[in-house]
Amino acid sequence: MKTLVLLSGGMDSVTALYHTHRSESNDAVVGLSFDYGSKHNAREIPYAAEHCRKLGIEHRVVKLDVMSQWFQSNLLKSGGEIPEGHYQESSMKQTVVPFRNGIMLSIAAGMAESMELEGIVIAAHSGDHAIYPDCREPFMQAMGEAIREGTYARLEILAPFLSMTKKEILQEGLKLGVDYSLTWSCYKGQLIQCGKCGTCVERREAFQLAGVEDPTVYEETPDLPNAPK
Amino acid sequence: MKTLVLLSGGMDSVTALYHTHRSESNDAVVGLSFDYGSKHNAREIPYAAEHCRKLGIEHRVVKLDVMSQWFQSNLLKSGGEIPEGHYQESSMKQTVVPFRNGIMLSIAAGMAESMELEGIVIAAHSGDHAIYPDCREPFMQAMGEAIREGTYARLEILAPFLSMTKKEILQEGLKLGVDYSLTWSCYKGQLIQCGKCGTCVERREAFQLAGVEDPTVYEETPDLPNAPK
Repeated sequence: MKTLVLLSGGMDSVTALYHTHRSESNDAVVGLSFDYGSKHNAREIPYAAEHCRKLGIEHRVVKLDVMSQWFQSNLLKSGGEIPEGHYQESSMKQTVVPFRNGIMLSIAAGMAESMELEGIVIAAHSGDHAIYPDCREPFMQAMGEAIREGTYARLEILAPFLSMTKKEILQEGLKLGVDYSLTWSCYKGQLIQCGKCGTCVERREAFQLAGVEDPTVYEETPDLPNAPK
Repeated sequence: MKTLVLLSGGMDSVTALYHTHRSESNDAVVGLSFDYGSKHNAREIPYAAEHCRKLGIEHRVVKLDVMSQWFQSNLLKSGGEIPEGHYQESSMKQTVVPFRNGIMLSIAAGMAESMELEGIVIAAHSGDHAIYPDCREPFMQAMGEAIREGTYARLEILAPFLSMTKKEILQEGLKLGVDYSLTWSCYKGQLIQCGKCGTCVERREAFQLAGVEDPTVYEETPDLPNAPK
């Protein structure tokens, strides 16, 4: 299946790019990034471009101004401060960009239909489910149906990591040869990843759980907080 | 229910704006237009703004460059010529913008969630079903489910005209006092509506079927072609 891969430049989507590229049944024709006004877009998108270049895959960046202009989220440059703590804590809801996956998947569907592709790959995983309604199975099922019904090509959504943990994605990526020093997670978008925001914590935890050395340079690495019960 | 109304500035969506505004159970809080690079955006959006101003409703315009840049459609300034003939002819497929309704509904969902609204109104109708997969009931059902599942507020899609014909929408709008001379249909985007492209034909046919005088100024008004069998 010829696919478009949603590619932020973080661990999960970069792993999905390699996973699709190396797959026998699927082919990654284009990697698609969105410059939607988040604090960390400018840090993560260069890594998305770099992995596409390495693998010989076309990379596209869609710029969206609508979120900065009218959406409420602390993930955006227009929003407040990024909270620190465990990724699954309810305080992390401040970083949710409303219906972001729906918007990215929809634009990807229109682009993929225009390119005569057959599928869209998204790297949503089980750890996202706690706070992101648009990462959960019922959303993915319905959105998949909407995209099938709303396109002539009856495009498919592929979410290969939907029931995997971030640790498992990391283990898969290491087998595929992903260089995780060339991926970006930190929501703060500073020059160096902070080590303390929700997604830095999630990233550090994945390496710790996998028992693998983390090649990332962090500003600070205090003890990891526990996941909420 | 507090709603956002998708508002192109054409007959159907302007009627939907009045229908929602005058409804006892719903309220139109914002009218949302998309400047997505079509040939006729520059003609229709001023009418969208005008009706919002008349009714005291906030009007927003989202600019999207992605379609002009990468989508295939003759509706776009980047595409080829607009075909003439009946709206439901297969040649009109050249004017389909892939997954446009999915994209507009998704962005509307994120914006509505940020504004703490409860619903999104879309004016898709039965005449659209022939060529637009993203106007049909199975798409609307699935997209509605995706938006409910993917938002904290469990936002609803309202499609009050989904099983109505354009003639019936026109009759509804006339009861509501819509001035159709202040709406734009023509896909060509000239200074005067052409009278011959698919959507001009559909517009003229609706007035003819309703037995109502058409206040629109057209460049030409040749006999209307028959609907395909």
